[in-house]
Amino acid sequence: MNYKSIGRFIAQILAVEALFLLPALVLSLVYKEPAATRAYLMTLAIVLVLAGLLYLATRGAKANIYEKEGLVCVGLSWILMSITGSLPFFLSKEIPSLVDAVFETASGFTTTGSSILTNIEALDKSLLYWRSFTHWLGGMGVLVFLLAIIPGSEGHSGFTLHLLRAESPGPSVGKLVPQMRKTARILYLIYIAITALDILFLLFGGMPVFDAFCIAFGTAGTGGFAVTNAGLGGYSPYIQVVTTVFMLLFGVNFSLYYLLLRKDFKSVRKDQELRFYLLTVLGAAVIFIISIFPMYREAGKTAGDVVRDSFFQVGAIITTTGFATADFNLWPTIAKAVIIFLTIIGASAGSTGGGMKCARALLTGKTLSRNVRCMMKPNRVIPVRMNGRVVSEDVLRNLHTYLIAYALIHIVSFFIVCLDGFDLTTSFTAVLTCSNNVGPGLGMVGPTGNFSQFSILSKLVLIFDMLAGRLEIFPMLVLLSPDTWSRK
Amino acid sequence: MNYKSIGRFIAQILAVEALFLLPALVLSLVYKEPAATRAYLMTLAIVLVLAGLLYLATRGAKANIYEKEGLVCVGLSWILMSITGSLPFFLSKEIPSLVDAVFETASGFTTTGSSILTNIEALDKSLLYWRSFTHWLGGMGVLVFLLAIIPGSEGHSGFTLHLLRAESPGPSVGKLVPQMRKTARILYLIYIAITALDILFLLFGGMPVFDAFCIAFGTAGTGGFAVTNAGLGGYSPYIQVVTTVFMLLFGVNFSLYYLLLRKDFKSVRKDQELRFYLLTVLGAAVIFIISIFPMYREAGKTAGDVVRDSFFQVGAIITTTGFATADFNLWPTIAKAVIIFLTIIGASAGSTGGGMKCARALLTGKTLSRNVRCMMKPNRVIPVRMNGRVVSEDVLRNLHTYLIAYALIHIVSFFIVCLDGFDLTTSFTAVLTCSNNVGPGLGMVGPTGNFSQFSILSKLVLIFDMLAGRLEIFPMLVLLSPDTWSRK
Repeated sequence: MNYKSIGRFIAQILAVEALFLLPALVLSLVYKEPAATRAYLMTLAIVLVLAGLLYLATRGAKANIYEKEGLVCVGLSWILMSITGSLPFFLSKEIPSLVDAVFETASGFTTTGSSILTNIEALDKSLLYWRSFTHWLGGMGVLVFLLAIIPGSEGHSGFTLHLLRAESPGPSVGKLVPQMRKTARILYLIYIAITALDILFLLFGGMPVFDAFCIAFGTAGTGGFAVTNAGLGGYSPYIQVVTTVFMLLFGVNFSLYYLLLRKDFKSVRKDQELRFYLLTVLGAAVIFIISIFPMYREAGKTAGDVVRDSFFQVGAIITTTGFATADFNLWPTIAKAVIIFLTIIGASAGSTGGGMKCARALLTGKTLSRNVRCMMKPNRVIPVRMNGRVVSEDVLRNLHTYLIAYALIHIVSFFIVCLDGFDLTTSFTAVLTCSNNVGPGLGMVGPTGNFSQFSILSKLVLIFDMLAGRLEIFPMLVLLSPDTWSRK
Repeated sequence: MNYKSIGRFIAQILAVEALFLLPALVLSLVYKEPAATRAYLMTLAIVLVLAGLLYLATRGAKANIYEKEGLVCVGLSWILMSITGSLPFFLSKEIPSLVDAVFETASGFTTTGSSILTNIEALDKSLLYWRSFTHWLGGMGVLVFLLAIIPGSEGHSGFTLHLLRAESPGPSVGKLVPQMRKTARILYLIYIAITALDILFLLFGGMPVFDAFCIAFGTAGTGGFAVTNAGLGGYSPYIQVVTTVFMLLFGVNFSLYYLLLRKDFKSVRKDQELRFYLLTVLGAAVIFIISIFPMYREAGKTAGDVVRDSFFQVGAIITTTGFATADFNLWPTIAKAVIIFLTIIGASAGSTGGGMKCARALLTGKTLSRNVRCMMKPNRVIPVRMNGRVVSEDVLRNLHTYLIAYALIHIVSFFIVCLDGFDLTTSFTAVLTCSNNVGPGLGMVGPTGNFSQFSILSKLVLIFDMLAGRLEIFPMLVLLSPDTWSRK
């Protein structure tokens, strides 16, 4: 293992984090929040000293980083980011428990949006900003940002490709352009542009500026932290519709936007994952509409409310944003089943969303169909195709590995969370919503609940699940593997 | 498709079923149950006429049967067996709904043990006997029986191997001896011998002869139908202990008993699946003991009760028998999580039990570990080994196909069952317990509940799940595949 390179890389990540803490520090001065200001300064000092020491200790690091190191880099830097990023909450005593603070920050960076807060509005404004901003940072990824700004990262593209692969969501990372650095820049520019557009639309609807920025951060990163106790349900129908549209936009593979910019409309129209994603959204919305209609009519609500709430909830869950404008805990069983299903499927590969990803679900179905046909005609070789191109058996093997690891993590986490003695639905959906980076689950962790009641052990497990979900499992699994740390 | 061969085969299966109905007919005469007697006679007439017509219509059938035909044969014959086997219940009007009667019979043949009966003791004795006997028949398989008695089946061993593969539980069917017919005979002899031993032990404990036979049938087939409303909890501790031991024995791969007979103790001792199975039993029992101890102490029960109930429930669930001596619906959440886990894992491959099978769970874990290691060192080829032998990539691909199909069937069934509007736990565990052939689930389908409240649609889906579970999915999937019926 190349410890020096890993250390050097993490030092850079910490420096970037410090950079992104500055706006929050400024805000704490503007809003006159002395406790928060002090906490930000202390955090900055700690992060910069840590980064500096790591940088000095890793002089002469060589860039020969392979798969294993790439995975370790990503796993470790996300853990460190979550811990250091939690210090403003903890040091300002706004979140008195360190585990809770790390939970909230990991939930932010991983764009989960699960919260341990029972009263969101009690938090200082600058901390609410930082909390929402972690969503935006985590959505596209701090490492991708780093790649976009490191000078000379083209030099060792093997290194950067491993990193990008490890941090980017989805079964296969395509380079948009031959240079990784340029790819990372294009991704971030698209990300910034759509976020800005979202903010404009929200401001146009009369949303307060602070709220518009924070909600747009949560939407762009598909995170889900709100800044008021009422959540998205407290805003106007216009704002809910705008947020629905933008959630769905951020759940699309960003490379499709690049194709649109290059006027390659045909590839976009024919993209199988996009079709799967849109059809799933439509199908789920129809089931919601039919199943909640009687309930809503009884409560005196309009058909417009039914359609708006249905699409909002579908968008919020499938993109794994996790905002809520309705308490779907009270919805019929079939609607809850669909919510569990959407939680697992998740958004598109190459988007800022979490979950298993539409591409994987589609590829899994295609593999099943192929293998059953092979079973009936054992002598024929039948390839699996995606967007017309043959998918290599290596990609399929990685898919299987992912699926098994995904199931295993859920099973083990579920057992541990069950020790707390809450009901099965709460325990199961708590794990599910964290590991798929959605936010709310069902039962006690539904849209009106929160995660404060879990034991420290369960919270640590759920933090692990959030990170594993965001990083697509393997970076976290590699950290746990004895092979990684053996000196052989 | 070779329709003639399939028809001829099904005719033979029906004839065997008629043969096995005779003891029930005799019992109905002994117990003086005229409605049942009439029902058996009508059933026999229908089955024999059907078999005769099929036999005449398929004259000149050639035995060139391939994978696809083997799967279709097995799927169709199990569906027909379930329908015709339900006629005694339906025609005697003891179960007035045909869907309910088919549910009960499919649950019998597939050794599930889920029941739609609310008052078991109200059933005629000869029908109770038939109900339990379907467990025994389904446990080892009617097709395997047919193979054991068909003269000349050695002639076309490709045919019989495809059938045996399709009906036998587990990822890889080993021939015990080169001739398939002899293999089938050995399996049935072992099965009969252990069942007889179980009956003797039960009779020794003072169990009524009728109960001893029926409970032994349910134990041997890992079915789970009881003959009294109190179930196994109504019998003495001795009988519960005997049943625990025999449930666990029937959950072991039968080829190990053959190895024992051949005095190959070393292979048995080193069998990795057996170790996994026994360790899982032990681990689960320990969790049960620790988690229910406070509850039992409060209720004034002894430590002996805790240990006996824990091991009984572990044995009943992991072997997918589904007897119950305790209402685990009232147990702590962690115990319920373990029950769900055991339901999925199931018994050993090559046993009479259901579920995913220990061998598959073990192989899945080994594959994950191998693939993660490959991911870190992409240039190394690392094989997966089981009992010291390399597992072929073909077997691993079949395993993956099985796992995906397994998940898919659960998801689709869960959605449909959710339409009934019962709670998530009830809906989910109803599907789980049926498709893994266990019997009881949690919530409304717990040990004290039953399946009568479900809609006809849900019952049909659950019947499909039971058959898919017993036949390891593919025969049922092939029946649903359009490719199977296309004329190309």
